[in-house]
Amino acid sequence: MTKPQMDFWFEFASTYSYLSVMRLPARSAEAGVAVRWRPFLLGPIFASQGWDTSPFKIYAAKGNYMWRDMERRCAALGLTFKRSDTMPQHSVLAARTAQIALETPQGIAFCQNVYLMQFAEGMNIADTDVMAACLSAARLPADLLEKAQTDANKHRLRDTTEEAMRRGLFGAPSFTVGDELFWGDDQLETALAWAVEHAA
Amino acid sequence: MTKPQMDFWFEFASTYSYLSVMRLPARSAEAGVAVRWRPFLLGPIFASQGWDTSPFKIYAAKGNYMWRDMERRCAALGLTFKRSDTMPQHSVLAARTAQIALETPQGIAFCQNVYLMQFAEGMNIADTDVMAACLSAARLPADLLEKAQTDANKHRLRDTTEEAMRRGLFGAPSFTVGDELFWGDDQLETALAWAVEHAA
Repeated sequence: MTKPQMDFWFEFASTYSYLSVMRLPARSAEAGVAVRWRPFLLGPIFASQGWDTSPFKIYAAKGNYMWRDMERRCAALGLTFKRSDTMPQHSVLAARTAQIALETPQGIAFCQNVYLMQFAEGMNIADTDVMAACLSAARLPADLLEKAQTDANKHRLRDTTEEAMRRGLFGAPSFTVGDELFWGDDQLETALAWAVEHAA
Repeated sequence: MTKPQMDFWFEFASTYSYLSVMRLPARSAEAGVAVRWRPFLLGPIFASQGWDTSPFKIYAAKGNYMWRDMERRCAALGLTFKRSDTMPQHSVLAARTAQIALETPQGIAFCQNVYLMQFAEGMNIADTDVMAACLSAARLPADLLEKAQTDANKHRLRDTTEEAMRRGLFGAPSFTVGDELFWGDDQLETALAWAVEHAA
């Protein structure tokens, strides 16, 4: 019997994705769901909605709420969280590197390191040295950074982002089970339960 | 000892408010939290963000997601739910009437009737006859509709909406405990727990 399957869509600049990236490994193991981790870019999706930056920047009330809400949620989960003025960060290098890293068992640790660097340490994830430190902490070789910058890998990220748009994604984190879309860290458990209930 | 307190902010045109309006009475009783029900209008808040209608109309991906998500959530809760093309409905009359109805113990039943009429039956809640039926089903007198249309009651709704804006509300349903704001039906339980934990 094959395990229930779910796709997990995350954006490295997204604060709420931090929560799911840290929570998902334990929750998906408990639920017995095989998860495909799919980094993508929200920038092109926001641009298609007429936004040139994060909605948390454009809509002040939403932004103020998000920072306080993240503080509360991180405190409840025992996660460190620092507010930052440089939001959203440039996440392309992190996403490209994650695609390669996720071909190995250490890929998830790499992704978690990137979020911790950004949201717990306040580091710039567009910085090659920061990426190298995240690879090293996940016991992955530094030359993944070069593999991340090949044309094939760049196209792959573009394809994934286009697939996200076709599937109707408009924010992160998101989860898909077949054609069913679930949006937001709040929906992580609901999506896992859906995967189990509707397994082939 | 006084009970923990929470304010519940809802908009009659809001699909997700339907979920909280139906769930909250049982959940708040279990949690032992006294809830003040505060109908308000999202229109002026959306207008201040540059939107002339619901974001579910402006952003197609968000709108498509919302309808499917509501279907799933209502199915899980055993609530009837019908998609509608006439969204958002005009909710001013319902909100004004609810203010008066909520001064009585039957006010919550009235509010639930309005949401059921709209989202389970597909009726127009701007219609005086529909409002009269909602009052009658809650065993409230029809003359509440006249009281709803006094200047004092109209001003009260405007004041509540301005207070919502001052408190940083940007969507519905929302919950406030002191200065803490929680947004979305997903946060209903979190808000109740916050009220209990931080009770004076």
